[in-house]
Amino acid sequence: MRLQLCTWPEVEARLARSTGIIVPIGSTEQHGPNGLIGTDAICPEVVAEGAAERIDALVAPTISIGMAQHHLAFPGTISLRPATLIAVVRDVVQSLARHGFREIYFLNGHGGNVATVQAAFAQYHSEASFTGVDGPAPRLKIANWFAGRRVAALSQELYGEAEGSHATPSEISLTWHAYPDRARPMQMEPRLAPKGAYGDAFDYRRRFPDGRIGSDPSLSSVEAGTRLYEASVEDTIEDYGAFVAGN
Amino acid sequence: MRLQLCTWPEVEARLARSTGIIVPIGSTEQHGPNGLIGTDAICPEVVAEGAAERIDALVAPTISIGMAQHHLAFPGTISLRPATLIAVVRDVVQSLARHGFREIYFLNGHGGNVATVQAAFAQYHSEASFTGVDGPAPRLKIANWFAGRRVAALSQELYGEAEGSHATPSEISLTWHAYPDRARPMQMEPRLAPKGAYGDAFDYRRRFPDGRIGSDPSLSSVEAGTRLYEASVEDTIEDYGAFVAGN
Amino acid sequence: MRLQLCTWPEVEARLARSTGIIVPIGSTEQHGPNGLIGTDAICPEVVAEGAAERIDALVAPTISIGMAQHHLAFPGTISLRPATLIAVVRDVVQSLARHGFREIYFLNGHGGNVATVQAAFAQYHSEASFTGVDGPAPRLKIANWFAGRRVAALSQELYGEAEGSHATPSEISLTWHAYPDRARPMQMEPRLAPKGAYGDAFDYRRRFPDGRIGSDPSLSSVEAGTRLYEASVEDTIEDYGAFVAGN
Amino acid sequence: MRLQLCTWPEVEARLARSTGIIVPIGSTEQHGPNGLIGTDAICPEVVAEGAAERIDALVAPTISIGMAQHHLAFPGTISLRPATLIAVVRDVVQSLARHGFREIYFLNGHGGNVATVQAAFAQYHSEASFTGVDGPAPRLKIANWFAGRRVAALSQELYGEAEGSHATPSEISLTWHAYPDRARPMQMEPRLAPKGAYGDAFDYRRRFPDGRIGSDPSLSSVEAGTRLYEASVEDTIEDYGAFVAGN
Amino acid sequence: MRLQLCTWPEVEARLARSTGIIVPIGSTEQHGPNGLIGTDAICPEVVAEGAAERIDALVAPTISIGMAQHHLAFPGTISLRPATLIAVVRDVVQSLARHGFREIYFLNGHGGNVATVQAAFAQYHSEASFTGVDGPAPRLKIANWFAGRRVAALSQELYGEAEGSHATPSEISLTWHAYPDRARPMQMEPRLAPKGAYGDAFDYRRRFPDGRIGSDPSLSSVEAGTRLYEASVEDTIEDYGAFVAGN
Amino acid sequence: MRLQLCTWPEVEARLARSTGIIVPIGSTEQHGPNGLIGTDAICPEVVAEGAAERIDALVAPTISIGMAQHHLAFPGTISLRPATLIAVVRDVVQSLARHGFREIYFLNGHGGNVATVQAAFAQYHSEASFTGVDGPAPRLKIANWFAGRRVAALSQELYGEAEGSHATPSEISLTWHAYPDRARPMQMEPRLAPKGAYGDAFDYRRRFPDGRIGSDPSLSSVEAGTRLYEASVEDTIEDYGAFVAGN
Repeated sequence: MRLQLCTWPEVEARLARSTGIIVPIGSTEQHGPNGLIGTDAICPEVVAEGAAERIDALVAPTISIGMAQHHLAFPGTISLRPATLIAVVRDVVQSLARHGFREIYFLNGHGGNVATVQAAFAQYHSEASFTGVDGPAPRLKIANWFAGRRVAALSQELYGEAEGSHATPSEISLTWHAYPDRARPMQMEPRLAPKGAYGDAFDYRRRFPDGRIGSDPSLSSVEAGTRLYEASVEDTIEDYGAFVAGN
Repeated sequence: MRLQLCTWPEVEARLARSTGIIVPIGSTEQHGPNGLIGTDAICPEVVAEGAAERIDALVAPTISIGMAQHHLAFPGTISLRPATLIAVVRDVVQSLARHGFREIYFLNGHGGNVATVQAAFAQYHSEASFTGVDGPAPRLKIANWFAGRRVAALSQELYGEAEGSHATPSEISLTWHAYPDRARPMQMEPRLAPKGAYGDAFDYRRRFPDGRIGSDPSLSSVEAGTRLYEASVEDTIEDYGAFVAGN
Repeated sequence: MRLQLCTWPEVEARLARSTGIIVPIGSTEQHGPNGLIGTDAICPEVVAEGAAERIDALVAPTISIGMAQHHLAFPGTISLRPATLIAVVRDVVQSLARHGFREIYFLNGHGGNVATVQAAFAQYHSEASFTGVDGPAPRLKIANWFAGRRVAALSQELYGEAEGSHATPSEISLTWHAYPDRARPMQMEPRLAPKGAYGDAFDYRRRFPDGRIGSDPSLSSVEAGTRLYEASVEDTIEDYGAFVAGN
Repeated sequence: MRLQLCTWPEVEARLARSTGIIVPIGSTEQHGPNGLIGTDAICPEVVAEGAAERIDALVAPTISIGMAQHHLAFPGTISLRPATLIAVVRDVVQSLARHGFREIYFLNGHGGNVATVQAAFAQYHSEASFTGVDGPAPRLKIANWFAGRRVAALSQELYGEAEGSHATPSEISLTWHAYPDRARPMQMEPRLAPKGAYGDAFDYRRRFPDGRIGSDPSLSSVEAGTRLYEASVEDTIEDYGAFVAGN
Repeated sequence: MRLQLCTWPEVEARLARSTGIIVPIGSTEQHGPNGLIGTDAICPEVVAEGAAERIDALVAPTISIGMAQHHLAFPGTISLRPATLIAVVRDVVQSLARHGFREIYFLNGHGGNVATVQAAFAQYHSEASFTGVDGPAPRLKIANWFAGRRVAALSQELYGEAEGSHATPSEISLTWHAYPDRARPMQMEPRLAPKGAYGDAFDYRRRFPDGRIGSDPSLSSVEAGTRLYEASVEDTIEDYGAFVAGN
Repeated sequence: MRLQLCTWPEVEARLARSTGIIVPIGSTEQHGPNGLIGTDAICPEVVAEGAAERIDALVAPTISIGMAQHHLAFPGTISLRPATLIAVVRDVVQSLARHGFREIYFLNGHGGNVATVQAAFAQYHSEASFTGVDGPAPRLKIANWFAGRRVAALSQELYGEAEGSHATPSEISLTWHAYPDRARPMQMEPRLAPKGAYGDAFDYRRRFPDGRIGSDPSLSSVEAGTRLYEASVEDTIEDYGAFVAGN
């Protein structure tokens, strides 16, 4: 169930039986010549909704704008600065913790969010740690939908080296599963995009002129997306279940 | 068209013909006994999508968590602090401005956002104003979907005094138009909720025990929601069009 | 009585009988060809002092620098960024609340302050709302001296359309009442200044070349100022009294 | 001339002949059993006005709330946090620099402001220093009215050891010169207040129960205040003149 | 060569031939019953000095206090909040970039720093990315001394499972190599510490009562430390060389 | 004993008998043609270690990067902004206070740090002062090694006017005592550097082209450094002892 579709008495009732919640977090950033700008938000959102439906979990509104400073040289990218995202995550966690949520699970679609979200968790925990005032703090986790064991194996099986690390055929396929009418089959030139490290948005665009890193998203398909969706829903049910159980 | 469903070359092409964009902004907060927690995000989102479809406008991802500190004593509310929301709006505007967007129109669903978003606009403009470095700055506007002339007239006609100011039958009806299966007809006790000013979340809950202010949302209906949706789409087309035209 | 002219034992004694205080807040910004730069601070200051004298209220030092980023292209304007003003208001409120003040009434002279001060109130209240620690929080209000019912009626009667919205004959008249030797009768060209929205300081100056918005301050007079002073003192006594009484 | 009593064209004209400005800065804090809470703002304000009148200098609005955290256990004290005051000073300096002011002289009435204001100057200068972008930066100085050579000699002559360091007979005399009807002759018990270092507001009040440090303000008088006023005006004319001249 | 032991003309001369620099970064935090509180700063410092000596590289002062909020329930731990460390890293990078350093290599000794330092890099790069002003930005990297290929292999060979992840015998051995008189052989009870995730400092201490995670530091020795030192110096020479060469 | 060379149980044991700690704080900045960039950190570090050895005191890791924005036009300088250093000092103090340290003594080597560190102390104390929550707060002091009575007398005796105020022969001699192989005897031209005030880094370098202010560091010697070391160790033992004793 999406939190935004509940009334507050329904949330209150739910909290009496479970204190866990899934928070999809993504990004709004270029995904190469044929990937959707919302890819990184769409993927964890549809997976979270799919998992939640099967296990009756609660899903918060998707944080759809993340830390994507390096993509800002491509039109359409919207980013938060790391300091801003840290404040957002802290406020979200503190809001949820106030109501009694104790297991807050961020299902993430953007590798570039991970460091900042972890820093945000530490910033949140710093309050108790520095003041020395103990309390019923929530447990926090960030998990990448694309790194679950079923998904990782399937991506490797489907695409091997062509998976790359940005604008991957796996994530693009999953968005096409969600929005089949947005599928844009297209040849890539070169087939595999370049790889490597990067700094700011200028540096990124110089190194990766069409936005991809290492990938060949011409291999994307709705069919693959459906398989990846199923794999990721299963991964998430397993991992979230273990997290809520305290493992 | 939703920005998140475009590729970056599509956004680039679009910018060549229009530099306007609509950014729905709402809140995730209690809306009384039978209102959805996502009401304030759902309303501007569906209206923006409806308007954009008819005039081929671009709609950014919805900023679904706003400034709702006063609702935090009700389970399910997620808020940003004003300082956090100011940073979010600044980063979003700066991202869009970098790509060449020049008319950025926030379609808002939550009265409690207005002051903070206006402060954010001023914070954004302060950079040029204090440093004395001029540049092609975007024009910024925040408009409330519920304050358009057609909507205001219709709300008055439908509900009069029972509209109130939080958890109103108009906004709840609009969410039921969008999610009819979430309609929750329900009697209210007292019929009209109390009115008045408030401070923090404790103060709010003491004054408004079930979350409503001044309203009787038992009057909500899908049918009214559909009429309000049409009115608001028309209002938005008119107001956004004037804004982009520089009026 | 001005707080700054009391000793601390006098404040302590006063708090035993009343926990209300008026905080004048204004701006230091251009006010057109013949308006004083301090207009927005002078007006609420003299009104607050006048009202306080009649009802034995306490008046804090005037916050004379406000949020005026859009006026920075005119010499003499001094502004705080919104984030700075939010911090100032929070610190002032927290200082007063610590001593036991419970009704803190900001009498404001600058429309451009309102959104930021309201964001500051929410920022102050956020502390209790997010941490969930209740306490005796002060009630906070911002009221514009120029929007009281007697003043609004009198401005309309005196100037009608020529009142405009910046460098108005009403506010300039009131400053001339306070500083008659600073009265600068002067013809305006054009008589009525242009109207409209604005962004940063460059945009403002392009749209409003002499600083006025919509007004004809050539109509200002000491006599009108004295009448406006009386009206505003009465408005303030009424509104502050109702606020302290909890209405 | 006070800036707040000028029009913007007057400021523009003035800048053509002088780029200096005096900014009085003080505090709103307890000053012992018979000292006014506004002492530290009143003193530099009246001295700055006196000096400016004689040499036709420009005086900005007084920053009347400073860094007084250690006085917050006494009713009536209003403080800014150091981080807030740093932001205020930065914004004020940046506003003035934008108009072409090049010699900005803070005339200070509160020892507790000095470190924070100096940190603020460094924060302001950091922008150019870190980015490596040179420009016509203003020169900045903070001077204490009570530390000028004439004033220091006169205080020593008048009060010697009884001057102390907070709620001194010199500063209280000067406020009585300015507001003779607020003079409150009073015996002190003990005659000389204790001395020493302090930390937060609790610590301060434990060490200095009536608020004074080391002083005997029963020696204050309007007559002494008038002599101190004259001495300080002369000191300020001399020191500000040298500052503007680049010495 | 340590930067702090150079004169500025020596740095200027050095920059003419190399624009690389190594910045050791660590932490000041508990390291179990017999590990030094400075372990995480000592390790990268001695390795950086060893590597720099052999290849004539420049080494900045060690940032010896890092992000260690989770260790604050153990006496002696000193931590920065993530937001503070982000500001520190940004200021250090900006200082170095201003002088022309173009390859800035953080040699890190504390896993808990990694996310925050990466967020800091993104915060630094955000300036160019958001404003759209390109420039000669430095390349930035954070590398963990304990994750180099030679070190990782040697740790595995020496300790296998007993290496654990905090207060590891490898890092403790390396500090004993640097400070042999501080070696504190000691039995551990239980031999292997527990493993798992953690939140704030209270949670950490409840889960890991003596401070270790997963390790058996009774296996530490000066001899192992010397071997690890050699391995890490070689790893660092290789990795830093590749980084400076642009690989 | 250096804190970084202790284990946490050793710190715990130490706290049972003494709650004092010395925190050396310096800067990484140019020190003229022959002064080491680390001068201001090296000096308080070696003095603190020397004093601590004789009286069995605890010494925290040196904060070796301080507030040196005005030196950034000379290669090798690394600075923190004032706001950053304030955050660092607050976090360090809060970390130490949490463990029960009650007398925290910053031994400083850089005059430019003083204002910012004092502002940081006030920022730390503001928490209790504004919230009105009392607690066992630590006492805080910053002392300059070069201002102790023995050192000041010896510097005057050795160098008189040639001591100057930056890149002084006293501080350079002390670094040569610590690192004799880094002694760089050198003639200065002019012999005495210019004096005066300064603003940002550009202004500083224009006024002081080789980095010195007022000094003739050609007079530096290892022998003088040894005498200054002894004097400073004695000064520090005396002053720290008095501080811990509450005087």
